[in-house]
Amino acid sequence: MNDKLYTIGVDYGTLSARAIVCRVSDGAVLSQCDHPYTHAVMTDCLPNGTRMPMGWSLQDPNDYLESLTISVRGAVEKAGVPIESIRGISIDFTTSTVMPVDENNKPLCNDPRFASRPDAWCKVWKHHGAQAEADALTALFAEKDPELLLLTGGRVSPECLPSKLLEVLHHDREVFDTMARYMEAGDWVTSMMTGTTIRALASMRNKAFYRDGIGLPPCLEEAYPELRGWADTLMSGQKVDIAQKAGELCPAMAERLGLCPGIAVGVFEADGHVALPGVGVSGDGAAMLSAGTSAALILCAREMRPVHGACTIGNNGILPGYWGYASGQAAFGDLLGWFVGHCVPPQTAEEAASRGISVHQLLTEKAAAMRPGSTGLLAIDWWNGDKSRGDMNVSGMFLGMTLQTTPEQMYRALLESLAFAVRRMIDAYEEQGILLNILHVGGGISYKNPLFMQIISDVTGKTLRCSAPLPAACVGSAMFAATAAGLYPTLDEAVTAMNCLGDVTYTPNPEATAQYLPLYKEYQTLSAYFSEENPVMHHLKSISRGE
Amino acid sequence: MNDKLYTIGVDYGTLSARAIVCRVSDGAVLSQCDHPYTHAVMTDCLPNGTRMPMGWSLQDPNDYLESLTISVRGAVEKAGVPIESIRGISIDFTTSTVMPVDENNKPLCNDPRFASRPDAWCKVWKHHGAQAEADALTALFAEKDPELLLLTGGRVSPECLPSKLLEVLHHDREVFDTMARYMEAGDWVTSMMTGTTIRALASMRNKAFYRDGIGLPPCLEEAYPELRGWADTLMSGQKVDIAQKAGELCPAMAERLGLCPGIAVGVFEADGHVALPGVGVSGDGAAMLSAGTSAALILCAREMRPVHGACTIGNNGILPGYWGYASGQAAFGDLLGWFVGHCVPPQTAEEAASRGISVHQLLTEKAAAMRPGSTGLLAIDWWNGDKSRGDMNVSGMFLGMTLQTTPEQMYRALLESLAFAVRRMIDAYEEQGILLNILHVGGGISYKNPLFMQIISDVTGKTLRCSAPLPAACVGSAMFAATAAGLYPTLDEAVTAMNCLGDVTYTPNPEATAQYLPLYKEYQTLSAYFSEENPVMHHLKSISRGE
Repeated sequence: MNDKLYTIGVDYGTLSARAIVCRVSDGAVLSQCDHPYTHAVMTDCLPNGTRMPMGWSLQDPNDYLESLTISVRGAVEKAGVPIESIRGISIDFTTSTVMPVDENNKPLCNDPRFASRPDAWCKVWKHHGAQAEADALTALFAEKDPELLLLTGGRVSPECLPSKLLEVLHHDREVFDTMARYMEAGDWVTSMMTGTTIRALASMRNKAFYRDGIGLPPCLEEAYPELRGWADTLMSGQKVDIAQKAGELCPAMAERLGLCPGIAVGVFEADGHVALPGVGVSGDGAAMLSAGTSAALILCAREMRPVHGACTIGNNGILPGYWGYASGQAAFGDLLGWFVGHCVPPQTAEEAASRGISVHQLLTEKAAAMRPGSTGLLAIDWWNGDKSRGDMNVSGMFLGMTLQTTPEQMYRALLESLAFAVRRMIDAYEEQGILLNILHVGGGISYKNPLFMQIISDVTGKTLRCSAPLPAACVGSAMFAATAAGLYPTLDEAVTAMNCLGDVTYTPNPEATAQYLPLYKEYQTLSAYFSEENPVMHHLKSISRGE
Repeated sequence: MNDKLYTIGVDYGTLSARAIVCRVSDGAVLSQCDHPYTHAVMTDCLPNGTRMPMGWSLQDPNDYLESLTISVRGAVEKAGVPIESIRGISIDFTTSTVMPVDENNKPLCNDPRFASRPDAWCKVWKHHGAQAEADALTALFAEKDPELLLLTGGRVSPECLPSKLLEVLHHDREVFDTMARYMEAGDWVTSMMTGTTIRALASMRNKAFYRDGIGLPPCLEEAYPELRGWADTLMSGQKVDIAQKAGELCPAMAERLGLCPGIAVGVFEADGHVALPGVGVSGDGAAMLSAGTSAALILCAREMRPVHGACTIGNNGILPGYWGYASGQAAFGDLLGWFVGHCVPPQTAEEAASRGISVHQLLTEKAAAMRPGSTGLLAIDWWNGDKSRGDMNVSGMFLGMTLQTTPEQMYRALLESLAFAVRRMIDAYEEQGILLNILHVGGGISYKNPLFMQIISDVTGKTLRCSAPLPAACVGSAMFAATAAGLYPTLDEAVTAMNCLGDVTYTPNPEATAQYLPLYKEYQTLSAYFSEENPVMHHLKSISRGE
């Protein structure tokens, strides 16, 4: 392989985009550059000050192009390679992060008529305004097309595309009627690059109930006349399967990004999935936990099994040739971030500052001195809902506080509860006979917090293998770009050559595993109680909304 | 009444003592002076650095005399009245705050042989090391003397004197065998003043199961041979009934305090009870909530009814001539203090500092802008156990957090949960036909936090009448001193003349009362669940202790 060829991988996360220039021959990361979205995630008001409904999470699509331009130009400049040697670009994106556009794919929120209309903006994956629509879809599928529920963990998530689309229908009919298409932001950015209209099939399978041979669910059009023919209208575009080429970089975008026109543009892949090849994992039983803002456990297997708690099960959904399974927790790193931002007193912040370490590092250091379960606390990690059950109206819990409870004990209890959430996901696979022996872990937390990794290993009883401190999702996207550019005949070959597999492993301590077991059982009991027996969490949300 | 006569009332709280000089004719407070206990409450280690068991709360009795001296001298100096015009002194004290002493009433912890032995120190009322002993006593009384359980809310509290005494027996036999007496700290300070050994009968009734005509429970001596004859040994001393004179100020203490020897010393009264006469409340149905570090709801009635949740029911226990009922929450103001000390981020502290207000004031101001129940949160206020059920092994809970939850929402949820705890106490009386129409409220919180008072009024549906911002407990003690000095023939007459009844009232808003009802029901459901159905809170405590 020519060692002077490069591709660009761009990872669109929840708050920023990061581009890398990656050498195709061995996956070496020559440079990287991040740029945060100017409007981040809007939860209170729109850019013009319009107040938004509670629980909403919106983004401004203009930020995507701005971050793309700055991060790609930055990475290319740092890499210092001739632009002719850059042969392809692929992005990964959060899903379903979706928005209405007009017939020219111009976002409706850019139209001054709709600038004050929340539904005209881009709904971020974690936007939770569509619970009622999700519940209605669950009931509809249960009656008309129960196979679909097998593929979605038994419930339709408010995060998926149809839930959010129906929310627009119910919440702002004029926006619904005006839009020409409803697009995944990942497809939209890809389409901006190719100058065509692209639809990633993997995302349609995972997030819009598309099935090969069936297409979009027929029962949807029966139940909602407004969706009649929507495959050819609202969802129109060129369908591109996983790891394929979406098109070629159009001259306008090439100029904007400072790249050569005509290079290959890969179809976008979900950000939670692309790190799997990124860390060099492929094949039957490949499994990876992406531990970032949220967490995703993804797994590839030859067979389709109805795994309870898997949010999405899709053929060719993650890697070509496999059934892809995905489970997740909607709050992971951002739960720890919430805690540090809202619940840590000045003296802790001052101690960290005086030692020149972060509050996370200080709390981790103090928490590391405690033995498993010694905090007297138990948390349920549902600050952003329970994704395993598709129930976004549950919420977080902390139990066991006394007047002696310290912030570091609470922090450790949160780490333990997130590890319990991981074990709960793994248990669901193993109950169906899909066994994991080694769990690969990627995402920033995997190399930033060894204590947390050891707790996950101890709680789950699994050996963890962590990726190198490289942007695995970007590397994965660069592999997709290399495949789209024809530099490798298959994705598997790109994975073998370009991976950034790390060599840091964590082995479970059997004594700690045993110590965690009674706590995990309490976690299971309370999770079941608040899911099935006592609807207090739902009730509190409706009381808080004044219902 | 001669308007040039004065008495001194000293209120011993959990962290400091406060003395006032009070005019006997009208109760005017001429001066006051506080002094904190040098060692405060010891929860980690003894003064010499010896580590203490988890969950313990000890004090150094030398601090009591130091604070007495400084506060009395300070108040007298500020008052500027001739010391000959000061005719009596009485104290109130937290109960059961108990300690072992030798035959000369010298605290065992002052003996160098025992300085490193936690059981030789004074166990503060909220010390929770004696749960096992309390459980054993509950079982014993249930079998041998069930009437006692009627007087203690169905369970023996680990806070009462016999629980703590048995803990000494089991935990440090040498301390048990060496002590000559086991004394309430209030009796000990009184005895130091009189130079004799005094036992307040009201406290023995409320905290040591003493019954008129029966004495200390006979079954205790049968079950624990080590207690045989303890009424005349460990519990020996001159029994003095409520509102009576304990003796005269001995010359040594008179010199130390700068007072005239021979003035009347009243018997001590519980700090949670003395504010009732202090705010001018007496007679059948008199009820008061003392809202301080902890909260006590006390109530006087002619009849004895088995009120579930009343921790103590004793004849002549609060006011002479009435059955006194007391319920309480073991964490009240200190729960809010814990939150502000542990869970409030630097930016909140900075905002408060920049505006020159306390963090409590800032959070209260922000919380006041929210409508009832709008936080989406529910807390159970058991940070220091559930005193209403005598179960100190339960713990606190916070439910409903999302990534948008703010510290001020959590603060409001704590205020609401404390108000629910007050309603739960009131409900228990009303279920037995003991009705409250007006609830008097005393304690620092009653005039510092109008929002909290309004929430209590709204949640309970009761009109609150708050005492003037005067140290009501000190005034109550000064009334006891005036009665002990013979300046009034009865306590009732002192109450009528000397009270510091305030004129701030809070009236319930019926709409808010209705809005709180569904939240209160959730509070009741979860309280019952964690008390009766799911022992997870107990389990977490035993796991944290490595059991």
